Amino acid sequence: MAGRLIYLDHAATTPVDPRVVEAMKPYWSDKFGNPSSVYQKGREASVVLGRAREQVSGVFGCLPAEIIFAGSGTESDNQAIIGTALANQSRGKHIITSAIEHHAVLHACEFLESQGFEVTYLPVTKAGIVKLEELEKSISQDTILVSIMYANNEIGTIQPVKEIAELVKKKNPKTYFHTDACQAAGYCDLAVDSLGVDLMTINGSKIYGPKGVGVLFVKKGVIINSFVHGGGQENGRRAGTENVPGIIGLATALELVQKEKEKESKRLIKLRDRLIEGLLKMDKVFLNGDPARRLPNNVNVTILDIEGESMLLHLDKEGIAASSGSACTSGSLDPSHVILALGQPYEVAHGSLRFTLGRANTEEDIDFVLKVLPGIVRELRQMSPVRIDPSKLK
Amino acid sequence: MAGRLIYLDHAATTPVDPRVVEAMKPYWSDKFGNPSSVYQKGREASVVLGRAREQVSGVFGCLPAEIIFAGSGTESDNQAIIGTALANQSRGKHIITSAIEHHAVLHACEFLESQGFEVTYLPVTKAGIVKLEELEKSISQDTILVSIMYANNEIGTIQPVKEIAELVKKKNPKTYFHTDACQAAGYCDLAVDSLGVDLMTINGSKIYGPKGVGVLFVKKGVIINSFVHGGGQENGRRAGTENVPGIIGLATALELVQKEKEKESKRLIKLRDRLIEGLLKMDKVFLNGDPARRLPNNVNVTILDIEGESMLLHLDKEGIAASSGSACTSGSLDPSHVILALGQPYEVAHGSLRFTLGRANTEEDIDFVLKVLPGIVRELRQMSPVRIDPSKLK
Repeated sequence: MAGRLIYLDHAATTPVDPRVVEAMKPYWSDKFGNPSSVYQKGREASVVLGRAREQVSGVFGCLPAEIIFAGSGTESDNQAIIGTALANQSRGKHIITSAIEHHAVLHACEFLESQGFEVTYLPVTKAGIVKLEELEKSISQDTILVSIMYANNEIGTIQPVKEIAELVKKKNPKTYFHTDACQAAGYCDLAVDSLGVDLMTINGSKIYGPKGVGVLFVKKGVIINSFVHGGGQENGRRAGTENVPGIIGLATALELVQKEKEKESKRLIKLRDRLIEGLLKMDKVFLNGDPARRLPNNVNVTILDIEGESMLLHLDKEGIAASSGSACTSGSLDPSHVILALGQPYEVAHGSLRFTLGRANTEEDIDFVLKVLPGIVRELRQMSPVRIDPSKLK
Repeated sequence: MAGRLIYLDHAATTPVDPRVVEAMKPYWSDKFGNPSSVYQKGREASVVLGRAREQVSGVFGCLPAEIIFAGSGTESDNQAIIGTALANQSRGKHIITSAIEHHAVLHACEFLESQGFEVTYLPVTKAGIVKLEELEKSISQDTILVSIMYANNEIGTIQPVKEIAELVKKKNPKTYFHTDACQAAGYCDLAVDSLGVDLMTINGSKIYGPKGVGVLFVKKGVIINSFVHGGGQENGRRAGTENVPGIIGLATALELVQKEKEKESKRLIKLRDRLIEGLLKMDKVFLNGDPARRLPNNVNVTILDIEGESMLLHLDKEGIAASSGSACTSGSLDPSHVILALGQPYEVAHGSLRFTLGRANTEEDIDFVLKVLPGIVRELRQMSPVRIDPSKLK
């Protein structure tokens, strides 16, 4: 194993920025009050909670009251989908999403199907872009919600969110549009007005903030139910004692990544493209996702005739942390639903390999990956019973 | 204002134990891996998550696989109720709870009523104990769940959980029994077998652990749906990247409070009873809840002819943090549903005052409260238009 760890799985989770750890520090044992309490220690917590809300709304360009803090990005996705569906079912019971969404969106939609809702799962192009003509055809008077992610967690494809928003509103002005921006939040513009979204989800653990805290933007006027039921926190829209340190951590992290995003994106794009270029020099390797409309930190390739998992273990021995798909499903042996949605056959989808770069990564890291990977691939291919003819692939 | 703060609202939230802060520390920026990832940094996180699960299951006397970590006590309460109801509705659509539950339980039940379930809200005695004969009468073949809290957050009454469990199983062995043990977790025995519960909720923020993390015990064999839908975490029963530092914090805090609970309970009971005794010496003041079957740290009195909120503000000026009821509803001007359920009229319920003691409190704190409160009461009563004849109260 190499002397140091080369962490290339920032889409799975990020280390918490030391500035964020510092920002959370006073709120554990000292300023620990419950923001709902009327005395000084409660009001102090309420004030800092309000300040965190303003930090987030400042980045989104929205009102502080349009922000709901929650326990994870998954919870915020769930509320965006289940909360709007249950609140608006009198207008219609149709929802549209894409085949490559995160499971936090897909499984929330499946839950709604079990409750009598109808869900359309839009196909994507070979590069992973939602087919807009299919979207346009799908929207009807019954469509209460469209949920399309801002950037994909596996292949890094950035969707044309503004165009989607315009299309949705043109076809049915009453249809809400939600975007899961968890992976985009570190690199893309989050101004909700310019994006045209009604609802947007981000979370802490993908932007160098803490795990266990999410944010849902809900545009004023959007009718949405509480998803977690109980006390009157978050203006009656999300029950449970507010995780004050976590919320402060998320707000601090969001401001920092957004302030540094242009510079960091430029730096990462260079590293990303260096890695992609090197990988594509190998035999029977191709890039998944769109080469240009892509997160600055995402590299996803398919290496034919090999299973992704075995590559990961060999890379791990070299001190390289990578992934074959979403961390959230890594217990499963099924190939990625995202890669399958690109039109790749089952046995090809098994060979996908994702590197997601981050702040600590350097050119040396990339070069080290490019140095060790060909040997791993050679060794694994020698053991592999599979031989795929790339000319047979679409 | 007094020189130091006398914090007497530990039922609202507790400061995080410095040993807990220390235990969480390595997991922010150093051991930050996603437990679902296959490489070394992910496995490291998975191992510590497993260790935290064993710490909690050790306290509960259950299997590690019977523990589901979540984003708050409220979420765990919601899953216990909504998750079992939706999964078992083919067996029946009747649920029983009590009128004095936390809103995390009551509002989850109301949600189920909106979905076609029938909910019985059991009355309590004047002392706040669930009426067992009413419980017995209510259980039918359609009853899929009974949810009764272990100890009440406002009046500190400890319910006869074992007796309730026996009664439930005697009347209908298929009915699940859930208890919300959030307030009890710091002071009461949590051995699930001895309690006879099928489901039990605790959270971090009431036991000197972090906010934003909850635990649901689900006995092997209990059929329950996921409440938050998405990735396959928590064995497919709670989606979302695990809040590793928060979970470690909760597990550490739980072990500590449980290890120290006997000694600390003895100490607090002395302080509690000193405070109760002193308060009852005042004119037109009576104790809410049961004098004996009561949490060691809970004092709740009604002070006639005064509104609780104005007392809080005057106490706050003296550096004393207390509460008039649940922190979760303190934005509302309605009197406490718990005090109303004890049979007190509306104008009386407005005058309740809660002190919940904790680790930092001393005899001096109690004596200071007893020194300043009579003056505050006198002043407020002079301004009050209300004069209640205590002999007219039941």
